Amino acid sequence: MARVMRLGRVELNVLNLDRSVEYYTKVIGLEETGRMGNSVYLKAWDEFDHHSLILTKSNKAGLVHLAFKVETLDDLAYYERKIEEFGCTTTRISSNTRLAEGEAVHFILPTGHHCELYHEIGFLGTAVGTKNPHPWPLGIKGIAPHRLDHLLLTGDDLKTVTRFFVEVLNFGQSERVVTEGEEELVGSFLFTTNTAHDIAFVKGPDAKLHHAAFGVDSLHDVFKAADLLSMYEVPFDVTPTRHGISRGQTIYFFDPSGNRNEAFAGGYMAFRDMPTITWDASKIGTGIFYHRRELSESFMKALT
Amino acid sequence: MARVMRLGRVELNVLNLDRSVEYYTKVIGLEETGRMGNSVYLKAWDEFDHHSLILTKSNKAGLVHLAFKVETLDDLAYYERKIEEFGCTTTRISSNTRLAEGEAVHFILPTGHHCELYHEIGFLGTAVGTKNPHPWPLGIKGIAPHRLDHLLLTGDDLKTVTRFFVEVLNFGQSERVVTEGEEELVGSFLFTTNTAHDIAFVKGPDAKLHHAAFGVDSLHDVFKAADLLSMYEVPFDVTPTRHGISRGQTIYFFDPSGNRNEAFAGGYMAFRDMPTITWDASKIGTGIFYHRRELSESFMKALT
Amino acid sequence: MARVMRLGRVELNVLNLDRSVEYYTKVIGLEETGRMGNSVYLKAWDEFDHHSLILTKSNKAGLVHLAFKVETLDDLAYYERKIEEFGCTTTRISSNTRLAEGEAVHFILPTGHHCELYHEIGFLGTAVGTKNPHPWPLGIKGIAPHRLDHLLLTGDDLKTVTRFFVEVLNFGQSERVVTEGEEELVGSFLFTTNTAHDIAFVKGPDAKLHHAAFGVDSLHDVFKAADLLSMYEVPFDVTPTRHGISRGQTIYFFDPSGNRNEAFAGGYMAFRDMPTITWDASKIGTGIFYHRRELSESFMKALT
Amino acid sequence: MARVMRLGRVELNVLNLDRSVEYYTKVIGLEETGRMGNSVYLKAWDEFDHHSLILTKSNKAGLVHLAFKVETLDDLAYYERKIEEFGCTTTRISSNTRLAEGEAVHFILPTGHHCELYHEIGFLGTAVGTKNPHPWPLGIKGIAPHRLDHLLLTGDDLKTVTRFFVEVLNFGQSERVVTEGEEELVGSFLFTTNTAHDIAFVKGPDAKLHHAAFGVDSLHDVFKAADLLSMYEVPFDVTPTRHGISRGQTIYFFDPSGNRNEAFAGGYMAFRDMPTITWDASKIGTGIFYHRRELSESFMKALT
Ligand SMILES: [Ca+2]
Ligand SMILES: [Ca+2]
Ligand SMILES: [Ca+2]
Ligand SMILES: [Ca+2]
Ligand SMILES: [Fe+3]
Ligand SMILES: [Fe+3]
Ligand SMILES: [Fe+3]
Ligand SMILES: [Fe+3]
Repeated sequence: MARVMRLGRVELNVLNLDRSVEYYTKVIGLEETGRMGNSVYLKAWDEFDHHSLILTKSNKAGLVHLAFKVETLDDLAYYERKIEEFGCTTTRISSNTRLAEGEAVHFILPTGHHCELYHEIGFLGTAVGTKNPHPWPLGIKGIAPHRLDHLLLTGDDLKTVTRFFVEVLNFGQSERVVTEGEEELVGSFLFTTNTAHDIAFVKGPDAKLHHAAFGVDSLHDVFKAADLLSMYEVPFDVTPTRHGISRGQTIYFFDPSGNRNEAFAGGYMAFRDMPTITWDASKIGTGIFYHRRELSESFMKALT
Repeated sequence: MARVMRLGRVELNVLNLDRSVEYYTKVIGLEETGRMGNSVYLKAWDEFDHHSLILTKSNKAGLVHLAFKVETLDDLAYYERKIEEFGCTTTRISSNTRLAEGEAVHFILPTGHHCELYHEIGFLGTAVGTKNPHPWPLGIKGIAPHRLDHLLLTGDDLKTVTRFFVEVLNFGQSERVVTEGEEELVGSFLFTTNTAHDIAFVKGPDAKLHHAAFGVDSLHDVFKAADLLSMYEVPFDVTPTRHGISRGQTIYFFDPSGNRNEAFAGGYMAFRDMPTITWDASKIGTGIFYHRRELSESFMKALT
Repeated sequence: MARVMRLGRVELNVLNLDRSVEYYTKVIGLEETGRMGNSVYLKAWDEFDHHSLILTKSNKAGLVHLAFKVETLDDLAYYERKIEEFGCTTTRISSNTRLAEGEAVHFILPTGHHCELYHEIGFLGTAVGTKNPHPWPLGIKGIAPHRLDHLLLTGDDLKTVTRFFVEVLNFGQSERVVTEGEEELVGSFLFTTNTAHDIAFVKGPDAKLHHAAFGVDSLHDVFKAADLLSMYEVPFDVTPTRHGISRGQTIYFFDPSGNRNEAFAGGYMAFRDMPTITWDASKIGTGIFYHRRELSESFMKALT
Repeated sequence: MARVMRLGRVELNVLNLDRSVEYYTKVIGLEETGRMGNSVYLKAWDEFDHHSLILTKSNKAGLVHLAFKVETLDDLAYYERKIEEFGCTTTRISSNTRLAEGEAVHFILPTGHHCELYHEIGFLGTAVGTKNPHPWPLGIKGIAPHRLDHLLLTGDDLKTVTRFFVEVLNFGQSERVVTEGEEELVGSFLFTTNTAHDIAFVKGPDAKLHHAAFGVDSLHDVFKAADLLSMYEVPFDVTPTRHGISRGQTIYFFDPSGNRNEAFAGGYMAFRDMPTITWDASKIGTGIFYHRRELSESFMKALT
């Protein structure tokens, strides 16, 4: 079977739908592609599918669900079976339960997060088209990421969730953080694309979101994003720096509901034959923030 | 079966082995990892495997073979069978025919190029290691690419070679260049990783090499590479510019034997569900050189 | 007396005022600040003064005049006297001959170009203001240079015009291009700010303009500018490269009348105690285009 | 009279000469150019003069003296007289009191710092030479700044020291930070070159050093510098960010004696006719750290 294609969408709970849509369109620079019920659907300019982000009104922030896109309906059935075999319950979510979406397979990750696999979703196309395209569209606004890039979630049992992604969903593990003597796994970075991570987990309470990351092109664009956050008075968590883990360039900040966002660029190319890079838990500060070399309290504590 | 993992190695004929090794180590910044017979083996600092480039002494320049790495020996057998089914003859090349290499499956592409698939190759590791690694090694020399990135080859029948890569090797086609009415395919860009291309073909004589590309991180690094070429008096073919096709940032230049090299950065993320981007042959100038918007004679004519 | 402050304005003849204004506002990203008679006045977003560029309708392209701003009216009188002493005729141009301008001192350079010195000009302020300013304004359009940067003019007697700038206007000479044996001066780069050049001359017909350059921040912005030129189908002269002379990063292109423009970034800091850098005429290709290492015919021939 | 040319040299007290020389050569990437008594002399690769930094062994860190270079001996005498007229005592320091230095005029700034003016100093030339030079030298090590860029000092009476620099040394004031109602001046940024600052003062104890800054070319180089600091385990004060004041890109870190260093890139061009930019003291957090928008305790407290 083919590999899981990518992290295709994320649904976030937000406290105020209007403020959130304004933030995700004006500051992040996503495009609103539809509304249904209490949800607004958005996509980045360089994504083809109908949406990669769903904002849903709620009385508390956090992750509603994440979903990976697979290449074919056969793959969907294949992975559904493997998930069941692992011992997770799957349910089919019917088409159009959410806007523009085909049938999805729902299950709960060992860390308690609601996850789906899907193949079918409406097609809208990128802002530059597919006929003699320009490399980027005029009239870009805000941070203007190319795409949703990855999620960092927290959970208690990282060995099991890693085993789930590796054995069931055929992900690779690019990096891991282990306590002395490799006794405990406290960070796990997993990839299905050739990027350093498509989903990652750090030790913490189950079912929580640490951050949702959007992909930009370069250090220059990370810095431009940081400038925009100050212009729009968006609260920072972490100002521009490099990750030791993934080598990427990054900033962290909060959406109006307190969901942490990241603008992320760079990182190495990951391949299935790469050995998993290992960080000692005592070096996690350097692993996360390569320059500052220590974690900050806000980065560890703020979860939604 | 899993996807073909990547373009793993390229063997180039060179006229003068010493001058070539000096160029590929000092200017390109690869590391020599071994010698056997008339061949020298090299790798980039961020590659794990024993080599990605083989320089072989010959009385004419050009491509000896290209090879893709697959994830398992089962995949090797699977693709071997598919290649045979397509109608290509395969032969097994035994271990250690070349240095540090396991068994490979050899065949000839519809464009006449010698191609191999392999899984086994010696492991050396990157220059930064896998334990609490720094993002890049001190003492980097020359252009210092992360890896071998892609090849552009020429051939007469691009429809068939595209069909071979898509149907047999499970590649995606990210972009194509077609003459009016889509009568003829004159450019075909194919990917197995999530990058815009891992191998590409343009209309031309069979069995020829247009260029071998090395991957660097950013526009800044492409420019640094260009500066180095002038310091080392390496002949340029194309000074820094952007590709319309792939959106990447690029320079082209020639090794001492006249084999064209590229330093390439950026480009979009390619996924299997992307529609193939189409360029009219009349716009190929813009597709190749987004700024100059026309091909140059040297770029079209110099092949090895 | 204080140094001449900067190249303050340039007046260009254009063939079609509307097309030119559209180009300089939409593509270059200048702001129109006024119109008077057959002239349109523009400034860059980071300039304080009323204008730095005047477009004047004419039946042929080219430079109408260039003007340097001095710090005080005393300086204006001081330099006026020195110009006369050098043997140039000066005339006073009265206030408001052009829009928002105070009195100016007019004279003709040894190369035949009409030149002025002035101190008074209307003040508009930059787009970010002077109270707790943001580093750049939202809503930037086009190339959006910070400022007019420098001019390159042609002339026959470069020794005399260099002597004029050095002895009369107190400029420094940062770089020069000389024929064998230093017999002839064929390029002369002159500065009054701490940048590598504020005005430069290459051997050629008198009274002609080679290019007017706008200053951007970085290689990244030069590249963005290059992309925009392709989006707007502006003809390039030279795609992104580095200068040997000045070390700056650059592109050249043409306005709708054929006046050559440059977007320029970087370059070293020049100080009055720096020795003049010398280029052999045989190396001028590398001096001008550090990567290509040879001049192009269009770059040498197209003058307005 | 000509303007004061630039901040030409800084002498720092260091606790351990060997460790300090190792740091300033290996990490910062300066070149040692001489030793005399308890002092080591260094220059950056792109400086022409014999040294811009003197490290002197002492039992406490801090600034020994700063010195500005003037263009001529006449200028030296002119400024000497103006300094005396302002009410500061000047003394002549004879040639060769320090290595390779000519006669200097010494005086104490209103903030208690020892300051000198000088014209004569030995000439060594840059690492690329002045004949057909390459834009940068091969074999660059460490951060490899182009030059010493500026100092930030602390003092009690910023109005007087600003008046001294503006009235006596003919500097411009690019930016200032004022308390409500402009009652007190708590930050003052002063320039003699066309950069946003060559020396600056913030409210604090007299005679103290806040930081010495080295100039690099771009955001990319600031980030490379930050990576190097982590590789060499140099303690950071501030990881990569932008200044609101000056718009520059920056990192702060400490030399082995606790003297704060900065690697600084960018910033606007300052001209004498620019209005002074004003920051409310309540906005100084944004002025200093444009992204974080608040000062840190270490940045305010650590002085040498
Ligand atoms: Ca990813
Ligand atoms: Ca590739
Ligand atoms: Ca200039
Ligand atoms: Ca400065
Ligand atoms: Fe992340
Ligand atoms: Fe290529
Ligand atoms: Fe120029
Ligand atoms: Fe500073």
